[in-house]
Amino acid sequence: MSHDIEDIQDCPADSRLAGHAPVCKGCPGQSLCSSQDSQADPDQEIIETRLKAIRHKILILSGKGGVGKSSIAVMLSQMLANDGCKVGVLDIDICGPSIPKLLSVEDQPVIDTQWGWKPIVSPHSNIKALSVGSFLASDCQAVVWRGPRKTALIRRMIKDTLWGRLDDLIIDTPPGTSDEHLTILKLLASTRPEGAIIVTSPQKLSAGVVSREIRFCQKMNVPILGIIQNMSGYTCPCCSEVTEIFSDGAGEYLAKKYGVPLLGSVPLDTSILKAQEKGSNIENMYPNSPFGVSMRQILKKIQKVLEK
Amino acid sequence: MSHDIEDIQDCPADSRLAGHAPVCKGCPGQSLCSSQDSQADPDQEIIETRLKAIRHKILILSGKGGVGKSSIAVMLSQMLANDGCKVGVLDIDICGPSIPKLLSVEDQPVIDTQWGWKPIVSPHSNIKALSVGSFLASDCQAVVWRGPRKTALIRRMIKDTLWGRLDDLIIDTPPGTSDEHLTILKLLASTRPEGAIIVTSPQKLSAGVVSREIRFCQKMNVPILGIIQNMSGYTCPCCSEVTEIFSDGAGEYLAKKYGVPLLGSVPLDTSILKAQEKGSNIENMYPNSPFGVSMRQILKKIQKVLEK
Repeated sequence: MSHDIEDIQDCPADSRLAGHAPVCKGCPGQSLCSSQDSQADPDQEIIETRLKAIRHKILILSGKGGVGKSSIAVMLSQMLANDGCKVGVLDIDICGPSIPKLLSVEDQPVIDTQWGWKPIVSPHSNIKALSVGSFLASDCQAVVWRGPRKTALIRRMIKDTLWGRLDDLIIDTPPGTSDEHLTILKLLASTRPEGAIIVTSPQKLSAGVVSREIRFCQKMNVPILGIIQNMSGYTCPCCSEVTEIFSDGAGEYLAKKYGVPLLGSVPLDTSILKAQEKGSNIENMYPNSPFGVSMRQILKKIQKVLEK
Repeated sequence: MSHDIEDIQDCPADSRLAGHAPVCKGCPGQSLCSSQDSQADPDQEIIETRLKAIRHKILILSGKGGVGKSSIAVMLSQMLANDGCKVGVLDIDICGPSIPKLLSVEDQPVIDTQWGWKPIVSPHSNIKALSVGSFLASDCQAVVWRGPRKTALIRRMIKDTLWGRLDDLIIDTPPGTSDEHLTILKLLASTRPEGAIIVTSPQKLSAGVVSREIRFCQKMNVPILGIIQNMSGYTCPCCSEVTEIFSDGAGEYLAKKYGVPLLGSVPLDTSILKAQEKGSNIENMYPNSPFGVSMRQILKKIQKVLEK
């Protein structure tokens, strides 16, 4: 490769070197990064006050889209709420939010009070939710935003949302390792998030992309609570044969390769997918489904780690 | 809603108003946008020369991740190549590239010649490919980049890649409506891309997110060639019963709602997923598979539109 080839080093966008590292030379974002990082954050105090009222802050990550991050985020939140915990879900997928539909809080606008944005409470599970979806006039309005503006909104979501005291804040993220991810980690840094749950499908193709997300967590010093392999096995509604549509065991492979716990595998279930899209509380509705039972076992493992 | 609530208007990042619109006031990216847009583009001539040598430029889009954009992009390219067309695939998914694996060009570095970056040729189908994956030291290296840097790389990919004469350039994109999408449309604008193919899964949840992508195309005046509904029906390998795992017909719903042609529906097929992950030429390998036959019919429809 020639020396002229694109230099794939990380953006030092959230370190002191932001805008000043050799790799920043010639980047169109250089002046933006240097100007932001040279200033002390005037909102640090309010951000910390808000976040310190939240016991556990857990990120749901996956390099890959469509592996069920939002579905897992909502299921975990519903189980925690069923156990009596005070739960919030923050959706930082700015261009493709799914949380409002899954928590049945669509078409309900966020109220701006003198103490901040009031999250919307889901009707079936008493979960507080905030998503860019709640700011949109309709659920199909496109959010055509570049990175700096996504960064600014996520910042406001952390600084201005009136969560109050929460046991758990589950943060659902978009695919990738870019603006949204760097921003949320920077905002959470001083109050240390408990860690990240990585979601993958069993496909080999996912393993490659999800690897990048695990490497990202390791670089950014975010503890990985474990990996959930979603879409593991499909039960034919006709003959009850369980087949592996997306085979290959990416979850197990990733857990071994990176020395991270595999929290468990959960199956694809058509009725559950449908019920989730209606915003139902899955554990209450299908208490004995293989999906529900596996997710309960996974939650137990997560709680053990959190109690340590 | 209070007047203080976040104002969900689009970024005017690629119009003359970039950095100067009322919505830009207070955005951290304001100075970046205004500085970029006030200058005439010194690379316009070389960009146009490169792009004018390419007959059809087709974008593969979907608001949603994991619906099979890359898989559809590769299948279309392989069918075109099988027909004797000169085909290139440009992967602008910077943080989660899948194209190198699907075209079997992993671990092959891009060569930088005096005429530009030489795309890598796929062994099974003679397709030229360029992806950020080809610049990485390993296939699990994370690309932790903010928007401005992704923009700069996509720009270089268009300006510096030595595609030569091509019949078709298929452009695979990440989920969302953000930096990558705005950037590629801006770069293609003067040589007018033929249009976009929208990929969706049949799920209701996808319909909401994919709606945003359709609205994005309409706003940006990108013609939509049609919608492909992927993952439609799964044939149980045991009893051959075809079941709808992801039911709801999002493709049909979206086509009707937005007056866009539904190009067709393609089924989930485990053997094809596996063969694709090995970089095989699917049409040659499974000429009579329902997936291959449906994709051929879809390609015919696309070609009819392109010939007009």
